[in-house]
Amino acid sequence: MQLFFHPNADNDHVCFSDDDARHLKVLRKKEGDLIDCTNGKGLHAKLKITGVLKNEIICDNISKEYIPHELPFLTVAISPLKNPDRYEWFIEKAVEMGVSRIVPITCKNTEKQKLRIDRVQKKIISAALQSLHFNFATIEDPLSFLDFIKSDLCTERFVAHCYSGQKEHLSTAMTKGKEVSILIGPEGDFSKEEVEEAIRKGYKAISLGVSRLRTETAGIYATSVFSILNYK
Amino acid sequence: MQLFFHPNADNDHVCFSDDDARHLKVLRKKEGDLIDCTNGKGLHAKLKITGVLKNEIICDNISKEYIPHELPFLTVAISPLKNPDRYEWFIEKAVEMGVSRIVPITCKNTEKQKLRIDRVQKKIISAALQSLHFNFATIEDPLSFLDFIKSDLCTERFVAHCYSGQKEHLSTAMTKGKEVSILIGPEGDFSKEEVEEAIRKGYKAISLGVSRLRTETAGIYATSVFSILNYK
Repeated sequence: MQLFFHPNADNDHVCFSDDDARHLKVLRKKEGDLIDCTNGKGLHAKLKITGVLKNEIICDNISKEYIPHELPFLTVAISPLKNPDRYEWFIEKAVEMGVSRIVPITCKNTEKQKLRIDRVQKKIISAALQSLHFNFATIEDPLSFLDFIKSDLCTERFVAHCYSGQKEHLSTAMTKGKEVSILIGPEGDFSKEEVEEAIRKGYKAISLGVSRLRTETAGIYATSVFSILNYK
Repeated sequence: MQLFFHPNADNDHVCFSDDDARHLKVLRKKEGDLIDCTNGKGLHAKLKITGVLKNEIICDNISKEYIPHELPFLTVAISPLKNPDRYEWFIEKAVEMGVSRIVPITCKNTEKQKLRIDRVQKKIISAALQSLHFNFATIEDPLSFLDFIKSDLCTERFVAHCYSGQKEHLSTAMTKGKEVSILIGPEGDFSKEEVEEAIRKGYKAISLGVSRLRTETAGIYATSVFSILNYK
């Protein structure tokens, strides 16, 4: 199945324009063809193409089904990186593997850089369609580390850091079926004070294995641990 | 710890030139400083800088320790991709997570493209140093799918594909401590004939979860399953 996105996929008539129309034309879609479409909010619509115009493709909505969000819910709160490509790769891979919510958190060692939320949104849509998700992951506006941990209401909360000390591996610390949040720090790690503050707020310090992973790899690894536990 | 690479790190005197010398100068390394160095073949050498010249940094080898290869051994045999960046990202992330051997396999649906083994080698070295590995992963010259499966002697062998049918999830199919190989197909998957041939040769068909993953994501996910089982 190839899945398409339209924010108004629940309307009776749906019109694709610009890049989306060009994409459908490249795929040689023609009048009468059926396509699978979602609004990223749980809808699986079957659309029938009724008109192929110069810059637009017009469809009738012939069936709608609502797919519930696959529980449980994973939040990854992760520092932006110097290299935005690495951050976007993390986002793409984490979305494919089933992350629900990404929160960019600015930490003591975060190097300032502008996150292009519009570009990132496009990456999320493309990865979610590729992986046939009807409920898309969301990305929030950047928050400070402290503001995030104050507002985080997840049932199980973890902080991944590289300081020494006894830490359980994430795969045994996490409970199947629980709503989870994981904090991943910047290049140069969280500060010791940040780790202590998280632990005071009820986060559990965890290990991501014996290798020292780059920030984006740590984010992908943590998402895969969650995905293996909950979606296998 | 910051780890450096030199192919002759076991010599009594070690000389860094070109990019490596520039890198050490950027890090403001000076005469008398100690650096950790590996040859990627199990050696952990402590070097003492004895001379900082215009284009070279000269060191004495003051101690050598051999770190055994962390068993078990994971081979990922994975089709090259249209977009070489995606392949290199797979390699970088798989090396960080602890893959031992990567074999590019050309399959029926593999789109022809040149793999730049020299570029890939640099990625492997950089990812291995980042993750403090003293035994580097290797990449082999591309092989045809059939030649690879004929020569594969790993104890546990798996093929990941998207055709329907009952498949166990990789995380329960794999045994902790065993030498493993995993086949990952191209965009468009293996052909049915390739899957059947692999199964005839003793490969077990496995699932990588409910999401449909891109090739490089499947490779990273499979490596993380292995890493979680063996290195947690």
